[in-house]
Amino acid sequence: MTRDDYLIFENYMLSCMEDSAHDKEHIYRVMYMALEIAQTEKNVDYDVLICACLLHDVGRKEQFEDPKLCHAQAGADKAYHFLKENGFSEEFAKRVSKCIRTHRFRAETQPESIEAKILFDADKIDVTGAVGIARTLVYKGQVGEPLYSVTEDGSVADGTMKGEGPSFFQEYKYKLENIYTKFYTARGAEIAKSRQEAAAVFYENMLREVREPYEKGKKYLERVVENNE
Amino acid sequence: MTRDDYLIFENYMLSCMEDSAHDKEHIYRVMYMALEIAQTEKNVDYDVLICACLLHDVGRKEQFEDPKLCHAQAGADKAYHFLKENGFSEEFAKRVSKCIRTHRFRAETQPESIEAKILFDADKIDVTGAVGIARTLVYKGQVGEPLYSVTEDGSVADGTMKGEGPSFFQEYKYKLENIYTKFYTARGAEIAKSRQEAAAVFYENMLREVREPYEKGKKYLERVVENNE
Repeated sequence: MTRDDYLIFENYMLSCMEDSAHDKEHIYRVMYMALEIAQTEKNVDYDVLICACLLHDVGRKEQFEDPKLCHAQAGADKAYHFLKENGFSEEFAKRVSKCIRTHRFRAETQPESIEAKILFDADKIDVTGAVGIARTLVYKGQVGEPLYSVTEDGSVADGTMKGEGPSFFQEYKYKLENIYTKFYTARGAEIAKSRQEAAAVFYENMLREVREPYEKGKKYLERVVENNE
Repeated sequence: MTRDDYLIFENYMLSCMEDSAHDKEHIYRVMYMALEIAQTEKNVDYDVLICACLLHDVGRKEQFEDPKLCHAQAGADKAYHFLKENGFSEEFAKRVSKCIRTHRFRAETQPESIEAKILFDADKIDVTGAVGIARTLVYKGQVGEPLYSVTEDGSVADGTMKGEGPSFFQEYKYKLENIYTKFYTARGAEIAKSRQEAAAVFYENMLREVREPYEKGKKYLERVVENNE
């Protein structure tokens, strides 16, 4: 890949970035992580891989404006047209586009090429460990969702209760905690695994820190506030 | 305190809450934590303490709309007028108001009464440990600040570098990391200390997780992208 081509991809990526949980540093982390994973895989087309990493989230804006749209599909289409318009070959545009279409965790289609599998894994690794916790919390701040839900009897819900609304704890228990087995490459699975404890320990610490004051504090409060009903 | 009075304070607090880093669950955590600390202190006026805890952030909206205003001062004034208008005594309104005025970390005036010291400590404890990390990250999402800065040579800054812009790492190193010695009560200091490692470990894990891919990835990228200048 020439530096000029790299800069074409990078500048297009930068022009598409708006929300900060999927900000440009996420793109660089995914690209660097993908290159790390690629070292242990055979027959990797680095041009396709790097271009797909840089452009994998260019459809975020479309999904943000219309949540019914899938950013992976929107991004795959945008990247294809962008590459064709900029003189890249049909085959290159198609291969990059296919990686982007299958990078999403919930996508119906699965990654097939080695570049698509590496992009998928590198993107998922950014949801693991302390980084995954940090990005989820930033997102909760952006959309105004709470850290945890409180049950009717005034206890802190741990994220696993039926009917719990969206919260950080809920997202940890339903998504972040369960991501560690869903990798396509051995190196990707290994890196994810090495980060699993950091996320689990954070959740456990936070749950303990918030539960204890609620449990003890409610009893202290009952002693002070007279029940004058 | 009668239940009716408690509900008057609680409902006024709820009517003043808007932003989610200082949402109502922060208020309950602070109140419950204050009651826990109060168990180890003498001559605590629980009515003043509970009312001050519930109302300590009612000036947040004023500071948010005009960042030159201090929410502790604005909240102290609002609480004083609210209590007087609702028929509470001049002395009670003044004592609650004084607690609120001095609860802020950066306030010029220091907490004097035992209730003011307990409120200060309970509010600071919510900046310690995993909870402090979580609240800071939610806030970064709300104001659109990044997780970390990247230096000119493309490395991840650890939060201590001169001229670094605002980021999560920067706030951890300048504020969160240094809060553990600034408590007025023995129990407050003890609880804070018990949470210190949870925060430190999270920062260390996250720094390692982000630094490594940048360091290795940049080198891999250089091998692939030809320098055609």
